[in-house]
Amino acid sequence: PEWEIIEENNIRRLQRIFKFGNFAEALDFTNKVGALAEEAGHHPAILTEYGQVTVTWWSHKIKGLHKNDFIMAAKTDQLQQY
Amino acid sequence: PEWEIIEENNIRRLQRIFKFGNFAEALDFTNKVGALAEEAGHHPAILTEYGQVTVTWWSHKIKGLHKNDFIMAAKTDQLQQY
Repeated sequence: PEWEIIEENNIRRLQRIFKFGNFAEALDFTNKVGALAEEAGHHPAILTEYGQVTVTWWSHKIKGLHKNDFIMAAKTDQLQQY
Repeated sequence: PEWEIIEENNIRRLQRIFKFGNFAEALDFTNKVGALAEEAGHHPAILTEYGQVTVTWWSHKIKGLHKNDFIMAAKTDQLQQY
């Protein structure tokens, strides 16, 4: 599935589920997203489960979506290729 | 906050929020929980956010809580001390 705009607690967020073969691969992706987040100084919510990672981006300050969240989403997609 | 029993999608689960000073410390804890999960062959849902990690244990096979989930919760608490 691609990125979806969801609304949770009245805040619009970008969310995508990434699928993996097991827990270790999912956790590895979580760490890649974490490194990207630290580099950008912008932090998503990352739900790590067996076989999948759900990444959610939004901008805390404006309590919604900013252009930067879409950029971070695109960068998150690129992490999947390596 | 301590462990709470929550119900999500008709499945009872054990959930606790662990607080941290920043994103990196939260992600570090996520990895510790991940290592514990791999060792046990039993995998929780781990939500990593800036300053906090929410860990949720339940038993997929019985769609609910088993004694083992309470043991894993106690082991998760021990990870926080180091």
